[in-house]
Amino acid sequence: MSGPTPVGADLHLADIDPSSTPGITKGRHEAARKRAYHGAELADLQERLYAAGMEGGKRSLLLVLQAMDTAGKGGIVRHVVGNMDPQGVHLHAFKAPTDEEQAHDFLWRIRAQLPAPGMVGVFDRSHYEDVLIARVHGLVPSEVIEQRYGQIAAFERELVASGTTIVKVMLHLSRDEQKDRLARRLDRRDKQWKYNPTDVDERARWDEYMAAYERAIRRTTEPSAPWFVVPADHKWYSRWAVQTIVIDALRGIDPQWPKVGYDIEEQKARLAAT
Amino acid sequence: MSGPTPVGADLHLADIDPSSTPGITKGRHEAARKRAYHGAELADLQERLYAAGMEGGKRSLLLVLQAMDTAGKGGIVRHVVGNMDPQGVHLHAFKAPTDEEQAHDFLWRIRAQLPAPGMVGVFDRSHYEDVLIARVHGLVPSEVIEQRYGQIAAFERELVASGTTIVKVMLHLSRDEQKDRLARRLDRRDKQWKYNPTDVDERARWDEYMAAYERAIRRTTEPSAPWFVVPADHKWYSRWAVQTIVIDALRGIDPQWPKVGYDIEEQKARLAAT
Repeated sequence: MSGPTPVGADLHLADIDPSSTPGITKGRHEAARKRAYHGAELADLQERLYAAGMEGGKRSLLLVLQAMDTAGKGGIVRHVVGNMDPQGVHLHAFKAPTDEEQAHDFLWRIRAQLPAPGMVGVFDRSHYEDVLIARVHGLVPSEVIEQRYGQIAAFERELVASGTTIVKVMLHLSRDEQKDRLARRLDRRDKQWKYNPTDVDERARWDEYMAAYERAIRRTTEPSAPWFVVPADHKWYSRWAVQTIVIDALRGIDPQWPKVGYDIEEQKARLAAT
Repeated sequence: MSGPTPVGADLHLADIDPSSTPGITKGRHEAARKRAYHGAELADLQERLYAAGMEGGKRSLLLVLQAMDTAGKGGIVRHVVGNMDPQGVHLHAFKAPTDEEQAHDFLWRIRAQLPAPGMVGVFDRSHYEDVLIARVHGLVPSEVIEQRYGQIAAFERELVASGTTIVKVMLHLSRDEQKDRLARRLDRRDKQWKYNPTDVDERARWDEYMAAYERAIRRTTEPSAPWFVVPADHKWYSRWAVQTIVIDALRGIDPQWPKVGYDIEEQKARLAAT
Protein backbone atom coordinates (compact mmCIF):
# COMPACT_ATOMS: atom_id res chain seq x y z
CA MET A 1 0.00 0.00 0.00
CA SER A 2 1.72 3.18 -1.16
CA GLY A 3 -0.23 5.80 0.66
CA PRO A 4 -0.28 9.57 0.52
CA THR A 5 2.98 11.25 1.50
CA PRO A 6 3.36 14.12 3.94
CA VAL A 7 3.96 17.61 2.66
CA GLY A 8 7.11 19.58 3.42
CA ALA A 9 7.90 23.07 4.65
CA ASP A 10 8.04 24.15 0.99
CA LEU A 11 4.35 23.40 0.40
CA HIS A 12 2.60 25.36 -2.35
CA LEU A 13 -1.08 24.56 -1.99
CA ALA A 14 -1.79 25.97 -5.44
CA ASP A 15 0.36 23.19 -6.92
CA ILE A 16 -1.93 20.48 -5.56
CA ASP A 17 -4.98 19.84 -7.70
CA PRO A 18 -8.03 19.20 -5.48
CA SER A 19 -9.50 16.98 -8.19
CA SER A 20 -6.41 14.78 -8.50
CA THR A 21 -6.34 11.23 -7.15
CA PRO A 22 -2.71 10.23 -6.54
CA GLY A 23 -2.37 6.52 -5.85
CA ILE A 24 -5.68 5.71 -7.54
CA THR A 25 -5.58 5.42 -11.32
CA LYS A 26 -8.81 3.60 -12.12
CA GLY A 27 -11.39 5.73 -10.38
CA ARG A 28 -13.98 5.28 -7.69
CA HIS A 29 -14.36 1.53 -7.92
CA GLU A 30 -10.66 0.96 -7.39
CA ALA A 31 -10.74 3.26 -4.36
CA ALA A 32 -13.82 1.57 -2.90
CA ARG A 33 -12.35 -1.90 -3.47
CA LYS A 34 -9.06 -0.98 -1.83
CA ARG A 35 -10.83 0.66 1.06
CA ALA A 36 -13.00 -2.39 1.68
CA TYR A 37 -9.99 -4.71 1.30
CA HIS A 38 -8.02 -2.91 4.00
CA GLY A 39 -11.01 -2.36 6.31
CA ALA A 40 -10.33 -5.56 8.24
CA GLU A 41 -6.68 -4.59 8.73
CA LEU A 42 -7.73 -1.21 10.08
CA ALA A 43 -10.11 -2.84 12.54
CA ASP A 44 -7.46 -5.35 13.61
CA LEU A 45 -4.76 -2.74 14.15
CA GLN A 46 -7.12 -0.55 16.12
CA GLU A 47 -8.23 -3.39 18.34
CA ARG A 48 -4.61 -4.29 19.06
CA LEU A 49 -3.86 -0.70 19.99
CA TYR A 50 -6.85 -0.67 22.32
CA ALA A 51 -5.96 -4.04 23.86
CA ALA A 52 -2.39 -2.90 24.49
CA GLY A 53 -3.70 0.28 26.11
CA MET A 54 -5.94 -1.73 28.44
CA GLU A 55 -2.88 -3.66 29.63
CA GLY A 56 -0.61 -0.71 30.32
CA GLY A 57 0.54 0.21 26.80
CA LYS A 58 1.22 3.93 26.33
CA ARG A 59 0.62 4.38 22.62
CA SER A 60 -2.26 6.26 21.05
CA LEU A 61 -3.11 7.85 17.72
CA LEU A 62 -4.39 11.35 17.06
CA LEU A 63 -5.96 12.18 13.71
CA VAL A 64 -6.47 15.90 13.14
CA LEU A 65 -8.95 16.84 10.41
CA GLN A 66 -9.00 20.37 9.03
CA ALA A 67 -10.84 21.67 6.01
CA MET A 68 -13.05 24.33 4.50
CA ASP A 69 -16.80 23.77 4.88
CA THR A 70 -18.30 20.91 2.84
CA ALA A 71 -14.87 19.35 2.23
CA GLY A 72 -16.10 16.08 3.72
CA LYS A 73 -14.88 15.84 7.32
CA GLY A 74 -18.22 14.37 8.31
CA GLY A 75 -17.98 11.67 5.67
CA ILE A 76 -14.47 10.77 6.80
CA VAL A 77 -15.77 10.38 10.33
CA ARG A 78 -18.70 8.25 9.19
CA HIS A 79 -16.89 6.05 6.69
CA VAL A 80 -13.31 5.78 7.97
CA VAL A 81 -13.60 6.36 11.69
CA GLY A 82 -16.88 4.44 11.58
CA ASN A 83 -14.94 1.30 10.57
CA MET A 84 -13.23 1.24 13.93
CA ASP A 85 -14.67 0.00 17.22
CA PRO A 86 -16.49 2.96 18.81
CA GLN A 87 -15.11 1.90 22.19
CA GLY A 88 -11.59 2.64 21.03
CA VAL A 89 -12.31 5.98 19.38
CA HIS A 90 -12.52 9.37 21.04
CA LEU A 91 -14.05 11.84 18.59
CA HIS A 92 -14.36 15.51 19.36
CA ALA A 93 -15.71 18.31 17.17
CA PHE A 94 -14.30 21.67 18.18
CA LYS A 95 -16.78 24.50 17.75
CA ALA A 96 -16.28 28.22 18.33
CA PRO A 97 -14.73 28.45 21.81
CA THR A 98 -16.99 29.14 24.77
CA ASP A 99 -16.34 32.01 27.15
CA GLU A 100 -14.71 29.60 29.58
CA GLU A 101 -12.49 28.16 26.87
CA GLN A 102 -11.51 31.63 25.70
CA ALA A 103 -10.48 32.57 29.22
CA HIS A 104 -7.78 29.87 28.99
CA ASP A 105 -4.76 29.36 26.77
CA PHE A 106 -5.87 28.12 23.34
CA LEU A 107 -4.44 24.65 23.97
CA TRP A 108 -6.40 24.15 27.20
CA ARG A 109 -9.53 22.77 25.59
CA ILE A 110 -7.41 20.69 23.22
CA ARG A 111 -5.55 18.96 26.04
CA ALA A 112 -8.85 18.00 27.64
CA GLN A 113 -9.76 15.94 24.55
CA LEU A 114 -6.48 14.13 23.91
CA PRO A 115 -6.76 10.36 23.38
CA ALA A 116 -5.96 8.17 26.38
CA PRO A 117 -3.46 5.32 25.90
CA GLY A 118 -4.89 2.75 23.51
CA MET A 119 -7.33 5.18 21.95
CA VAL A 120 -7.64 6.70 18.51
CA GLY A 121 -8.46 10.36 18.96
CA VAL A 122 -10.14 12.19 16.11
CA PHE A 123 -10.30 15.97 16.06
CA ASP A 124 -12.92 17.47 13.77
CA ARG A 125 -11.24 20.89 13.65
CA SER A 126 -8.59 21.50 16.26
CA HIS A 127 -6.02 23.88 17.68
CA TYR A 128 -5.28 24.82 14.08
CA GLU A 129 -8.43 26.92 14.04
CA ASP A 130 -6.49 29.23 16.34
CA VAL A 131 -4.05 29.99 13.53
CA LEU A 132 -6.58 29.75 10.67
CA ILE A 133 -9.85 31.51 11.42
CA ALA A 134 -7.96 33.52 14.04
CA ARG A 135 -5.57 34.79 11.36
CA VAL A 136 -8.14 35.36 8.62
CA HIS A 137 -10.46 37.29 10.93
CA GLY A 138 -7.66 39.03 12.81
CA LEU A 139 -8.97 37.71 16.12
CA VAL A 140 -5.51 38.03 17.64
CA PRO A 141 -2.47 40.11 16.60
CA SER A 142 -0.22 38.54 13.98
CA GLU A 143 2.67 38.30 16.48
CA VAL A 144 0.46 36.04 18.57
CA ILE A 145 -0.27 33.85 15.54
CA GLU A 146 3.46 33.60 14.90
CA GLN A 147 4.04 32.52 18.51
CA ARG A 148 1.28 29.96 18.25
CA TYR A 149 2.99 28.08 15.41
CA GLY A 150 5.89 27.45 17.75
CA GLN A 151 3.59 26.62 20.66
CA ILE A 152 1.72 24.11 18.52
CA ALA A 153 4.94 22.47 17.35
CA ALA A 154 6.20 22.20 20.94
CA PHE A 155 2.82 20.84 22.10
CA GLU A 156 2.83 18.19 19.40
CA ARG A 157 6.43 17.19 20.17
CA GLU A 158 5.36 16.71 23.77
CA LEU A 159 2.49 14.46 22.70
CA VAL A 160 4.75 12.41 20.46
CA ALA A 161 7.26 12.01 23.29
CA SER A 162 4.49 10.67 25.51
CA GLY A 163 3.51 7.98 23.01
CA THR A 164 0.95 9.62 20.72
CA THR A 165 1.35 9.28 16.98
CA ILE A 166 -0.02 12.38 15.29
CA VAL A 167 -1.25 12.68 11.72
CA LYS A 168 -2.77 15.88 10.42
CA VAL A 169 -4.95 16.02 7.37
CA MET A 170 -6.10 19.00 5.35
CA LEU A 171 -8.93 18.01 3.03
CA HIS A 172 -8.10 20.14 0.02
CA LEU A 173 -11.26 21.22 -1.79
CA SER A 174 -11.57 23.49 -4.80
CA ARG A 175 -13.52 26.70 -4.60
CA ASP A 176 -15.77 25.57 -7.46
CA GLU A 177 -16.58 22.23 -5.88
CA GLN A 178 -17.48 23.99 -2.64
CA LYS A 179 -19.94 26.14 -4.54
CA ASP A 180 -21.63 23.06 -6.00
CA ARG A 181 -21.82 21.37 -2.61
CA LEU A 182 -23.25 24.42 -0.87
CA ALA A 183 -25.83 24.74 -3.65
CA ARG A 184 -26.84 21.11 -3.15
CA ARG A 185 -27.23 21.69 0.57
CA LEU A 186 -29.58 24.57 -0.13
CA ASP A 187 -31.60 22.42 -2.53
CA ARG A 188 -32.20 19.46 -0.25
CA ARG A 189 -34.61 19.40 2.67
CA ASP A 190 -32.38 16.83 4.43
CA LYS A 191 -29.23 18.93 3.95
CA GLN A 192 -30.44 22.47 4.60
CA TRP A 193 -29.69 22.21 8.31
CA LYS A 194 -26.01 21.77 7.45
CA TYR A 195 -25.92 25.14 5.72
CA ASN A 196 -25.15 28.31 7.62
CA PRO A 197 -25.27 31.79 6.10
CA THR A 198 -21.78 32.43 7.45
CA ASP A 199 -20.54 29.70 5.08
CA VAL A 200 -20.79 32.23 2.25
CA ASP A 201 -18.98 34.86 4.30
CA GLU A 202 -16.11 32.47 4.91
CA ARG A 203 -16.14 31.44 1.27
CA ALA A 204 -15.58 35.07 0.31
CA ARG A 205 -12.26 34.88 2.15
CA TRP A 206 -11.13 31.75 0.29
CA ASP A 207 -7.73 33.05 -0.78
CA GLU A 208 -6.97 34.29 2.71
CA TYR A 209 -7.85 30.89 4.11
CA MET A 210 -5.64 29.12 1.61
CA ALA A 211 -2.76 31.44 2.56
CA ALA A 212 -3.41 30.79 6.26
CA TYR A 213 -3.50 27.01 5.68
CA GLU A 214 -0.31 27.08 3.66
CA ARG A 215 1.54 29.08 6.28
CA ALA A 216 0.23 27.00 9.20
CA ILE A 217 1.11 23.73 7.49
CA ARG A 218 4.59 24.91 6.50
CA ARG A 219 5.31 25.99 10.04
CA THR A 220 4.02 22.84 11.73
CA THR A 221 4.74 19.90 9.43
CA GLU A 222 7.45 17.75 10.99
CA PRO A 223 8.48 14.14 10.48
CA SER A 224 7.04 13.32 13.89
CA ALA A 225 3.77 15.21 13.29
CA PRO A 226 3.28 15.29 9.54
CA TRP A 227 0.67 17.12 7.51
CA PHE A 228 -1.06 15.45 4.60
CA VAL A 229 -2.87 17.53 2.01
CA VAL A 230 -5.56 15.23 0.63
CA PRO A 231 -7.31 16.23 -2.60
CA ALA A 232 -10.98 16.30 -1.67
CA ASP A 233 -13.04 17.10 -4.73
CA HIS A 234 -13.75 13.37 -4.99
CA LYS A 235 -15.10 12.00 -1.74
CA TRP A 236 -14.32 8.43 -2.77
CA TYR A 237 -10.72 9.48 -3.09
CA SER A 238 -10.33 11.37 0.17
CA ARG A 239 -11.94 8.55 2.14
CA TRP A 240 -9.51 6.03 0.71
CA ALA A 241 -6.59 8.40 1.26
CA VAL A 242 -7.41 9.15 4.90
CA GLN A 243 -8.05 5.48 5.66
CA THR A 244 -4.64 4.70 4.15
CA ILE A 245 -2.96 7.41 6.23
CA VAL A 246 -4.55 6.03 9.40
CA ILE A 247 -3.55 2.46 8.57
CA ASP A 248 0.02 3.53 7.82
CA ALA A 249 0.17 5.36 11.16
CA LEU A 250 -1.13 2.32 13.04
CA ARG A 251 1.35 0.07 11.21
CA GLY A 252 4.04 2.43 12.41
CA ILE A 253 2.91 1.88 15.98
CA ASP A 254 2.76 -1.87 15.27
CA PRO A 255 0.59 -2.65 18.29
CA GLN A 256 0.85 -6.19 19.67
CA TRP A 257 -1.63 -8.25 21.63
CA PRO A 258 -0.57 -7.64 25.21
CA LYS A 259 0.93 -10.20 27.54
CA VAL A 260 -1.56 -10.85 30.28
CA GLY A 261 -0.83 -10.64 33.98
CA TYR A 262 -2.38 -13.95 35.02
CA ASP A 263 -1.45 -17.61 34.62
CA ILE A 264 -3.51 -18.98 31.74
CA GLU A 265 -3.47 -22.66 32.80
CA GLU A 266 -4.39 -21.75 36.36
CA GLN A 267 -7.36 -19.74 35.13
CA LYS A 268 -8.50 -22.54 32.84
CA ALA A 269 -8.55 -24.86 35.84
CA ARG A 270 -10.46 -22.35 37.96
CA LEU A 271 -13.01 -21.83 35.20
CA ALA A 272 -13.43 -25.56 34.61
CA ALA A 273 -14.29 -26.00 38.27
CA THR A 274 -17.27 -23.62 38.07
CA MET B 1 -41.27 -4.78 12.48
CA SER B 2 -42.51 -6.45 15.63
CA GLY B 3 -39.68 -5.90 18.00
CA PRO B 4 -38.91 -7.12 21.49
CA THR B 5 -41.37 -6.05 24.16
CA PRO B 6 -40.51 -4.53 27.52
CA VAL B 7 -40.71 -6.63 30.64
CA GLY B 8 -43.08 -5.89 33.50
CA ALA B 9 -42.79 -5.60 37.26
CA ASP B 10 -43.66 -9.30 37.45
CA LEU B 11 -40.50 -10.38 35.63
CA HIS B 12 -39.18 -13.87 36.32
CA LEU B 13 -35.78 -14.04 34.68
CA ALA B 14 -35.76 -17.82 35.00
CA ASP B 15 -38.73 -17.94 32.62
CA ILE B 16 -36.76 -16.33 29.82
CA ASP B 17 -34.59 -18.78 27.89
CA PRO B 18 -31.24 -17.13 27.01
CA SER B 19 -31.02 -19.29 23.91
CA SER B 20 -34.46 -18.33 22.60
CA THR B 21 -34.88 -16.00 19.63
CA PRO B 22 -38.34 -14.41 19.81
CA GLY B 23 -39.25 -12.62 16.59
CA ILE B 24 -36.72 -14.62 14.54
CA THR B 25 -37.90 -18.04 13.43
CA LYS B 26 -35.42 -18.91 10.65
CA GLY B 27 -32.09 -18.42 12.38
CA ARG B 28 -29.03 -16.29 11.90
CA HIS B 29 -29.48 -15.49 8.24
CA GLU B 30 -32.94 -14.09 8.81
CA ALA B 31 -31.60 -11.94 11.65
CA ALA B 32 -28.65 -10.71 9.58
CA ARG B 33 -30.89 -9.93 6.60
CA LYS B 34 -33.37 -8.00 8.74
CA ARG B 35 -30.61 -6.12 10.48
CA ALA B 36 -29.02 -5.10 7.18
CA TYR B 37 -32.42 -4.17 5.75
CA HIS B 38 -33.19 -1.78 8.59
CA GLY B 39 -29.66 -0.38 8.84
CA ALA B 40 -30.43 2.51 6.51
CA GLU B 41 -33.55 3.41 8.49
CA LEU B 42 -31.52 3.48 11.69
CA ALA B 43 -28.93 5.77 10.10
CA ASP B 44 -31.67 8.04 8.72
CA LEU B 45 -33.54 8.32 12.02
CA GLN B 46 -30.35 9.04 13.90
CA GLU B 47 -29.29 11.74 11.46
CA ARG B 48 -32.70 13.39 11.75
CA LEU B 49 -32.43 13.37 15.53
CA TYR B 50 -28.97 14.93 15.31
CA ALA B 51 -30.08 17.53 12.76
CA ALA B 52 -33.05 18.51 14.92
CA GLY B 53 -30.74 18.83 17.92
CA MET B 54 -28.42 21.15 16.00
CA GLU B 55 -31.37 23.43 15.29
CA GLY B 56 -32.73 23.66 18.82
CA GLY B 57 -34.56 20.35 19.17
CA LYS B 58 -34.58 18.96 22.70
CA ARG B 59 -34.91 15.24 22.09
CA SER B 60 -32.24 12.65 22.71
CA LEU B 61 -32.01 8.89 23.19
CA LEU B 62 -30.27 6.99 25.95
CA LEU B 63 -29.51 3.29 25.53
CA VAL B 64 -28.44 1.56 28.73
CA LEU B 65 -26.63 -1.76 28.30
CA GLN B 66 -26.24 -4.09 31.26
CA ALA B 67 -25.04 -7.67 31.27
CA MET B 68 -22.83 -10.28 32.81
CA ASP B 69 -19.31 -10.52 31.38
CA THR B 70 -19.03 -11.90 27.84
CA ALA B 71 -22.73 -11.33 27.14
CA GLY B 72 -21.83 -9.22 24.11
CA LYS B 73 -22.05 -5.55 25.04
CA GLY B 74 -18.94 -4.86 23.02
CA GLY B 75 -20.43 -6.49 19.94
CA ILE B 76 -23.61 -4.47 20.30
CA VAL B 77 -21.53 -1.31 20.42
CA ARG B 78 -19.50 -2.34 17.38
CA HIS B 79 -22.32 -3.68 15.24
CA VAL B 80 -25.39 -1.67 16.24
CA VAL B 81 -24.00 1.59 17.56
CA GLY B 82 -21.34 1.38 14.86
CA ASN B 83 -24.07 1.74 12.23
CA MET B 84 -24.80 5.25 13.42
CA ASP B 85 -22.83 8.39 12.64
CA PRO B 86 -20.09 8.64 15.28
CA GLN B 87 -20.70 12.40 15.47
CA GLY B 88 -24.17 11.80 16.83
CA VAL B 89 -23.27 9.14 19.38
CA HIS B 90 -21.95 9.64 22.88
CA LEU B 91 -20.66 6.33 24.19
CA HIS B 92 -19.43 5.91 27.72
CA ALA B 93 -18.17 2.78 29.46
CA PHE B 94 -18.56 3.02 33.21
CA LYS B 95 -15.76 1.29 35.10
CA ALA B 96 -15.34 0.84 38.85
CA PRO B 97 -15.83 4.34 40.31
CA THR B 98 -12.76 6.45 41.03
CA ASP B 99 -12.17 7.96 44.46
CA GLU B 100 -13.54 11.27 43.21
CA GLU B 101 -16.65 9.59 41.82
CA GLN B 102 -17.18 7.68 45.04
CA ALA B 103 -17.04 10.89 47.02
CA HIS B 104 -20.17 12.02 45.17
CA ASP B 105 -23.70 10.69 44.98
CA PHE B 106 -23.82 7.63 42.71
CA LEU B 107 -25.72 9.52 40.01
CA TRP B 108 -23.10 12.31 39.79
CA ARG B 109 -20.87 10.56 37.28
CA ILE B 110 -23.90 9.38 35.33
CA ARG B 111 -25.25 12.91 34.88
CA ALA B 112 -21.91 14.01 33.48
CA GLN B 113 -22.30 11.56 30.58
CA LEU B 114 -25.92 12.16 29.61
CA PRO B 115 -26.56 12.72 25.91
CA ALA B 116 -26.94 16.32 24.77
CA PRO B 117 -30.00 17.21 22.66
CA GLY B 118 -29.82 15.44 19.30
CA MET B 119 -27.44 12.78 20.56
CA VAL B 120 -27.76 9.06 21.09
CA GLY B 121 -26.13 8.23 24.40
CA VAL B 122 -24.94 4.69 24.98
CA PHE B 123 -24.03 3.50 28.46
CA ASP B 124 -21.87 0.40 28.64
CA ARG B 125 -22.78 -0.38 32.24
CA SER B 126 -24.47 2.42 34.12
CA HIS B 127 -26.04 3.57 37.38
CA TYR B 128 -27.50 0.07 37.59
CA GLU B 129 -24.12 -1.22 38.72
CA ASP B 130 -24.88 0.65 41.93
CA VAL B 131 -27.77 -1.72 42.63
CA LEU B 132 -26.19 -4.83 41.06
CA ILE B 133 -22.56 -5.31 42.01
CA ALA B 134 -23.23 -3.06 45.00
CA ARG B 135 -25.94 -5.47 46.18
CA VAL B 136 -24.13 -8.70 45.40
CA HIS B 137 -20.94 -7.58 47.11
CA GLY B 138 -22.72 -5.77 49.94
CA LEU B 139 -20.89 -2.54 49.13
CA VAL B 140 -23.68 -0.54 50.72
CA PRO B 141 -26.40 -1.51 53.22
CA SER B 142 -29.53 -3.04 51.75
CA GLU B 143 -31.64 -0.06 52.87
CA VAL B 144 -29.46 2.11 50.66
CA ILE B 145 -30.01 -0.22 47.72
CA GLU B 146 -33.75 0.01 48.33
CA GLN B 147 -33.56 3.81 48.33
CA ARG B 148 -31.54 3.77 45.13
CA TYR B 149 -34.29 2.01 43.17
CA GLY B 150 -36.53 4.97 43.90
CA GLN B 151 -33.77 7.47 43.20
CA ILE B 152 -33.07 5.83 39.86
CA ALA B 153 -36.75 5.86 38.91
CA ALA B 154 -37.02 9.55 39.84
CA PHE B 155 -33.82 10.36 37.96
CA GLU B 156 -35.08 8.63 34.83
CA ARG B 157 -38.46 10.35 35.04
CA GLU B 158 -36.60 13.64 35.17
CA LEU B 159 -34.63 12.74 32.03
CA VAL B 160 -37.77 11.69 30.20
CA ALA B 161 -39.46 14.96 31.15
CA SER B 162 -36.53 16.87 29.70
CA GLY B 163 -36.81 15.13 26.32
CA THR B 164 -34.67 12.00 26.62
CA THR B 165 -36.13 8.68 25.54
CA ILE B 166 -34.65 5.90 27.67
CA VAL B 167 -34.38 2.24 26.77
CA LYS B 168 -32.65 -0.22 29.05
CA VAL B 169 -31.38 -3.56 27.88
CA MET B 170 -30.23 -6.54 29.88
CA LEU B 171 -28.38 -8.99 27.67
CA HIS B 172 -29.53 -12.26 29.15
CA LEU B 173 -26.82 -14.91 28.92
CA SER B 174 -26.87 -18.44 30.25
CA ARG B 175 -24.33 -19.60 32.77
CA ASP B 176 -23.19 -22.39 30.44
CA GLU B 177 -22.69 -20.11 27.47
CA GLN B 178 -20.61 -17.77 29.63
CA LYS B 179 -18.37 -20.67 30.56
CA ASP B 180 -17.79 -21.47 26.89
CA ARG B 181 -17.05 -17.86 26.05
CA LEU B 182 -14.62 -17.40 28.92
CA ALA B 183 -12.87 -20.62 27.89
CA ARG B 184 -12.53 -19.31 24.35
CA ARG B 185 -11.03 -16.07 25.66
CA LEU B 186 -8.43 -18.04 27.55
CA ASP B 187 -7.59 -20.06 24.45
CA ARG B 188 -7.02 -17.20 22.06
CA ARG B 189 -3.97 -14.94 22.04
CA ASP B 190 -6.11 -12.10 20.65
CA LYS B 191 -8.80 -12.52 23.32
CA GLN B 192 -6.78 -13.19 26.48
CA TRP B 193 -6.55 -9.48 27.28
CA LYS B 194 -10.34 -9.43 27.67
CA TYR B 195 -10.21 -12.01 30.45
CA ASN B 196 -9.79 -10.98 34.05
CA PRO B 197 -9.38 -13.46 36.92
CA THR B 198 -12.19 -11.67 38.76
CA ASP B 199 -14.52 -12.84 35.97
CA VAL B 200 -14.54 -16.28 37.61
CA ASP B 201 -15.17 -14.77 41.05
CA GLU B 202 -18.20 -12.92 39.70
CA ARG B 203 -19.34 -16.04 37.89
CA ALA B 204 -19.38 -17.89 41.20
CA ARG B 205 -22.07 -15.43 42.33
CA TRP B 206 -24.25 -16.03 39.27
CA ASP B 207 -27.48 -16.72 41.13
CA GLU B 208 -27.02 -13.68 43.34
CA TYR B 209 -26.50 -11.55 40.24
CA MET B 210 -29.62 -12.94 38.60
CA ALA B 211 -31.60 -12.13 41.74
CA ALA B 212 -30.15 -8.63 41.83
CA TYR B 213 -30.97 -8.07 38.14
CA GLU B 214 -34.50 -9.34 38.58
CA ARG B 215 -35.13 -7.11 41.56
CA ALA B 216 -33.55 -4.03 39.96
CA ILE B 217 -35.50 -4.50 36.74
CA ARG B 218 -38.80 -5.07 38.54
CA ARG B 219 -38.33 -1.93 40.58
CA THR B 220 -37.30 0.32 37.68
CA THR B 221 -39.19 -0.82 34.58
CA GLU B 222 -41.74 1.81 33.66
CA PRO B 223 -43.58 2.60 30.45
CA SER B 224 -41.47 5.74 30.09
CA ALA B 225 -38.18 3.97 30.86
CA PRO B 226 -38.71 0.34 29.90
CA TRP B 227 -36.40 -2.61 30.45
CA PHE B 228 -35.90 -5.19 27.74
CA VAL B 229 -34.46 -8.60 28.59
CA VAL B 230 -32.77 -9.74 25.39
CA PRO B 231 -31.76 -13.41 25.10
CA ALA B 232 -28.04 -13.30 24.41
CA ASP B 233 -26.74 -16.81 23.90
CA HIS B 234 -26.91 -16.11 20.15
CA LYS B 235 -25.04 -12.92 19.28
CA TRP B 236 -26.76 -12.70 15.92
CA TYR B 237 -30.04 -12.58 17.78
CA SER B 238 -29.15 -10.00 20.41
CA ARG B 239 -27.68 -7.65 17.81
CA TRP B 240 -30.86 -7.76 15.76
CA ALA B 241 -33.00 -7.36 18.88
CA VAL B 242 -31.11 -4.34 20.21
CA GLN B 243 -31.05 -2.68 16.81
CA THR B 244 -34.80 -3.18 16.62
CA ILE B 245 -35.30 -1.69 20.10
CA VAL B 246 -33.24 1.36 19.13
CA ILE B 247 -35.12 1.84 15.87
CA ASP B 248 -38.47 1.54 17.65
CA ALA B 249 -37.35 4.15 20.18
CA LEU B 250 -36.24 6.54 17.44
CA ARG B 251 -39.51 5.99 15.58
CA GLY B 252 -41.26 6.96 18.78
CA ILE B 253 -39.34 10.24 18.80
CA ASP B 254 -40.16 10.64 15.10
CA PRO B 255 -37.45 13.26 14.48
CA GLN B 256 -38.05 15.62 11.57
CA TRP B 257 -35.60 17.54 9.44
CA PRO B 258 -35.53 20.93 11.13
CA LYS B 259 -36.85 24.15 9.68
CA VAL B 260 -33.90 26.38 9.04
CA GLY B 261 -33.55 29.95 10.32
CA TYR B 262 -32.48 31.55 7.04
CA ASP B 263 -34.20 32.45 3.76
CA ILE B 264 -33.29 29.75 1.26
CA GLU B 265 -33.78 31.81 -1.90
CA GLU B 266 -31.79 34.69 -0.47
CA GLN B 267 -28.92 32.35 0.33
CA LYS B 268 -29.01 30.79 -3.13
CA ALA B 269 -28.62 34.26 -4.60
CA ARG B 270 -25.76 35.13 -2.27
CA LEU B 271 -23.99 31.89 -3.11
CA ALA B 272 -24.50 32.33 -6.85
CA ALA B 273 -22.81 35.73 -6.63
CA THR B 274 -19.58 34.25 -5.26
